[in-house]
Amino acid sequence: MTLTPDQQAEIDALRAAPRQTLRAVSEGMEAHLYNAIPVLDHGFIRVVDYMGDDAAICQAARVSYGKGTKSVQNDEGLIRYLMRHWHSTPFEMCEVKLHVKLPVFVARQWIRHRTANVNEYSARYSILDREFYIPAPEHIAAQSVVNNQGRGEALTGAEAARVLDILKTDSERSYDNYQAMISDDGQRGLARELARMNLPTNIYTQWYWKVDLHNLLHFLRLRADAHAQYEIRVYADAICSVVADWVPFAYAAFEDYRLGGATLSETALECVRRMLKGEAVTQETSGMSKGEWREFEQLL
Amino acid sequence: MTLTPDQQAEIDALRAAPRQTLRAVSEGMEAHLYNAIPVLDHGFIRVVDYMGDDAAICQAARVSYGKGTKSVQNDEGLIRYLMRHWHSTPFEMCEVKLHVKLPVFVARQWIRHRTANVNEYSARYSILDREFYIPAPEHIAAQSVVNNQGRGEALTGAEAARVLDILKTDSERSYDNYQAMISDDGQRGLARELARMNLPTNIYTQWYWKVDLHNLLHFLRLRADAHAQYEIRVYADAICSVVADWVPFAYAAFEDYRLGGATLSETALECVRRMLKGEAVTQETSGMSKGEWREFEQLL
Amino acid sequence: MTLTPDQQAEIDALRAAPRQTLRAVSEGMEAHLYNAIPVLDHGFIRVVDYMGDDAAICQAARVSYGKGTKSVQNDEGLIRYLMRHWHSTPFEMCEVKLHVKLPVFVARQWIRHRTANVNEYSARYSILDREFYIPAPEHIAAQSVVNNQGRGEALTGAEAARVLDILKTDSERSYDNYQAMISDDGQRGLARELARMNLPTNIYTQWYWKVDLHNLLHFLRLRADAHAQYEIRVYADAICSVVADWVPFAYAAFEDYRLGGATLSETALECVRRMLKGEAVTQETSGMSKGEWREFEQLL
Amino acid sequence: MTLTPDQQAEIDALRAAPRQTLRAVSEGMEAHLYNAIPVLDHGFIRVVDYMGDDAAICQAARVSYGKGTKSVQNDEGLIRYLMRHWHSTPFEMCEVKLHVKLPVFVARQWIRHRTANVNEYSARYSILDREFYIPAPEHIAAQSVVNNQGRGEALTGAEAARVLDILKTDSERSYDNYQAMISDDGQRGLARELARMNLPTNIYTQWYWKVDLHNLLHFLRLRADAHAQYEIRVYADAICSVVADWVPFAYAAFEDYRLGGATLSETALECVRRMLKGEAVTQETSGMSKGEWREFEQLL
Repeated sequence: MTLTPDQQAEIDALRAAPRQTLRAVSEGMEAHLYNAIPVLDHGFIRVVDYMGDDAAICQAARVSYGKGTKSVQNDEGLIRYLMRHWHSTPFEMCEVKLHVKLPVFVARQWIRHRTANVNEYSARYSILDREFYIPAPEHIAAQSVVNNQGRGEALTGAEAARVLDILKTDSERSYDNYQAMISDDGQRGLARELARMNLPTNIYTQWYWKVDLHNLLHFLRLRADAHAQYEIRVYADAICSVVADWVPFAYAAFEDYRLGGATLSETALECVRRMLKGEAVTQETSGMSKGEWREFEQLL
Repeated sequence: MTLTPDQQAEIDALRAAPRQTLRAVSEGMEAHLYNAIPVLDHGFIRVVDYMGDDAAICQAARVSYGKGTKSVQNDEGLIRYLMRHWHSTPFEMCEVKLHVKLPVFVARQWIRHRTANVNEYSARYSILDREFYIPAPEHIAAQSVVNNQGRGEALTGAEAARVLDILKTDSERSYDNYQAMISDDGQRGLARELARMNLPTNIYTQWYWKVDLHNLLHFLRLRADAHAQYEIRVYADAICSVVADWVPFAYAAFEDYRLGGATLSETALECVRRMLKGEAVTQETSGMSKGEWREFEQLL
Repeated sequence: MTLTPDQQAEIDALRAAPRQTLRAVSEGMEAHLYNAIPVLDHGFIRVVDYMGDDAAICQAARVSYGKGTKSVQNDEGLIRYLMRHWHSTPFEMCEVKLHVKLPVFVARQWIRHRTANVNEYSARYSILDREFYIPAPEHIAAQSVVNNQGRGEALTGAEAARVLDILKTDSERSYDNYQAMISDDGQRGLARELARMNLPTNIYTQWYWKVDLHNLLHFLRLRADAHAQYEIRVYADAICSVVADWVPFAYAAFEDYRLGGATLSETALECVRRMLKGEAVTQETSGMSKGEWREFEQLL
Repeated sequence: MTLTPDQQAEIDALRAAPRQTLRAVSEGMEAHLYNAIPVLDHGFIRVVDYMGDDAAICQAARVSYGKGTKSVQNDEGLIRYLMRHWHSTPFEMCEVKLHVKLPVFVARQWIRHRTANVNEYSARYSILDREFYIPAPEHIAAQSVVNNQGRGEALTGAEAARVLDILKTDSERSYDNYQAMISDDGQRGLARELARMNLPTNIYTQWYWKVDLHNLLHFLRLRADAHAQYEIRVYADAICSVVADWVPFAYAAFEDYRLGGATLSETALECVRRMLKGEAVTQETSGMSKGEWREFEQLL
């Protein structure tokens, strides 16, 4: 991650100026505000603002005039109940705004989550920085042989070195040519909105991203999952650590019911019931396809 | 508006407990927090939380590391530019959460604005209060004779008195019967989820409503409009007064470009051009229908 | 359900006029088009239009130039895979438009599903019909003693009769008074937008409702559930029967993975694993609260 | 545009198999179904499915049992009224599904329109084709000197040739290296989800995109605008030609009230009123900033 001294000074200035508010305050989140949490080689997430805390979830669920429930213990129980029964609207009453720096190919996955607000750095208006994601050697992975959309073991030795060399060389060359095209030194520079198309998708972009807690948790469930691409999963993991400090009860319930939980089909539930009665169920007698059965066995 | 002493005490407790925050603070909004602004006979709006201020709009538009633009003057100019050119995403970076008490028939119009978060008081779970909207005499209006979905002049005298009497009597009777049905005094009480259907839509409900500034301004443009039904317009007006204190630059731009502005069709623009050249354009030569022409004349 | 002869004639005319199309056609859905399926005493659902079929889900998942997969068998397997792994976007590629007639208190629950398009009959513009939902005697149920937001056993005898009498009498009286207020016979009629507030929420309204298949299935999962209020569940059930004819593979997968399935928390999964190893897990040793444990036991 | 013989055969097969339907049919749209309309050098749009027509807009606006209004003339008047008064929900009752092939940098602008459904070709799962957008010489434009996010005059001669050479050479080299990295010929191939990041954003992707007519018109208003980047504007223009055939009344109203229309602020309206009374208003006396005044003068 690279913050310029100016950028760091702006962050420091914001953190040095506390003010009074009557709003709900999450101390765990105040500690994060504005600071950049590094992700990948040049990326980060920064909490820019937030609204609400655990108590605000309960307050909305009860449509109350004051704070949430009367005791902290009640708050935790209510939040677990809401999460277990898919009552999503109270979780929508918390909101967070992040500043994220990320490679374009990660941004393209991220933006598919539509229920959020986004302001992206404009490459029509501004010139992009020379910053590209180059994977650490241990993340230069071969195509998976079992999963068409995943990766397998890491490449090593000459194979890995060659990939790294290609990625670095092509990134540098494309950026040199980007600069050469937009330069107005002794020529008319190409329009920025055209020149940018020469840049590969490992270049970094950045955006402000604002989302409510319910939709954020949905994003995290899909993107902190083991099947998500590593390069977006590390962003999800960083956000998880922030959410755990922001709304500890909601995050703990999310871990139990979503991240660590699983949905069983009616067929799978019936198999569990039979197995608990002592029956030795096999794929053939399960009613499941081979793929489903494999996933079922891994789960139990 | 009727707040019980308990409710008022909860509000007072929240207003008496300022805390420190590093977040953007809008002093204009802090003054409103938790206080109930009366609307209609028993309704209110209360600001429960907010995120962002005018500077936050600029900060997001520029995807900056610190505050928005360098000067307050620049902020205002940028906000006006964004509003004029329909750049909506920076306005989505501010958020507000309201607690609203409102008649059910108003809630039914309000909920049509889908891009918002809502937690409503549950009449399956809880018992509704005996509070009904009874219009003030000057708002007992006759059906409009020119507009199928509007109202005309106020009824007066015996006509108004009869309406008032019907509304009051039917409200009271329906509530008496609601109570009689759910009572478990000497009987098994009817399920609340069934009993509530006996209540007319002038009964009050309440909800937490959270929305971003862009969608809020869209709501206000439609609901603070002269063609909106009076009973929702007064809520929109109350919210307008809050938004003006929260984000003064954004609200001033909204007043100029949206509330006070108008969209002219290509045909209408061409008529204006002809008129400015001195031509006496009539409905017949305008290319507009009679309805359009009437609206066009009223505008200019 | 009451269709006037005119309304039935309009439906018959539409069903009598088949046309040629190059679009995907679902024969199961063509059989439903325009016909009203009765729900409750005066309500119905009618399929007014639809887009796509099972093959269209596969076609979109593969971003293909022609139809979906090469064989019907492949289509079914792919659809089950997509449903199992929460790949929701291909299901969004099917769309349905319904005309629904329903009591206002049901409409108020229904509209909470925001990702849909709605055009409701306007009671500002038009006069509502004298049609109220009066529960069948077996649905006049007492408040549940175990569930704060549900109903228990049916009331009987004099208790049920009294409720029915109240509901009928109040409905009739409120409608009589509605008519009296808006009448311009010998008086100036009250504005319709005001008069409607005297009507209880068991009055019927109607709307056009358009939704994609993914969001429809989400609606059905919540509203065809045993915990949903009976009066909306019967609408969900009627829609289920239509969806089963429209996209049979998608609906079968939905039944297995959603309607009949269940989500287990990490704690619950661990309990299942321990039980399968022969351990006698109790609530005390489960790590679950009493409420969670009760739900867990019911499931298995 | 390049369709393989297989792809064209699939399209031909679909167009050769008309079926009967009871749904609303738009003859103008049937003529477009499945055919690819070329855009840019390798891109296209294809209508894959649609729902509704002009009459369906009116049918929903009236919540009617049969077709829309009784006469075609009434339909047109109603549609113009709805468009003029921003009644957006009836337009949401029509839906269209497109298959679009487009450069990634265009896709990144396009996807910002969130109220739509998308299935994109997966570069984690599949290998991308060697197809890059290379601008025609007349679209190799210099950066605008008046607009920070636009382009000015076309480059010519050696300047244009150099840009074209860079774009072509870098595209080819990056694709060669992409292939070299994923190849498993004598090596373990790099995971596709990693290798793709080496490709510049002028590579083509494709997706299924489904949207309702209201949101499509909003997209077209912004993207068929003269200020939109040329490379997305040509897609918008192609879609405009399709919509004009699909819903001719709605499209004509859209052209008059949106594409050709303009929104005037309260300040601007007051200037028009003063000018119509004969006053010679200048920027200094207008109350507008220089930027606003310039836009105002251009409009009139």
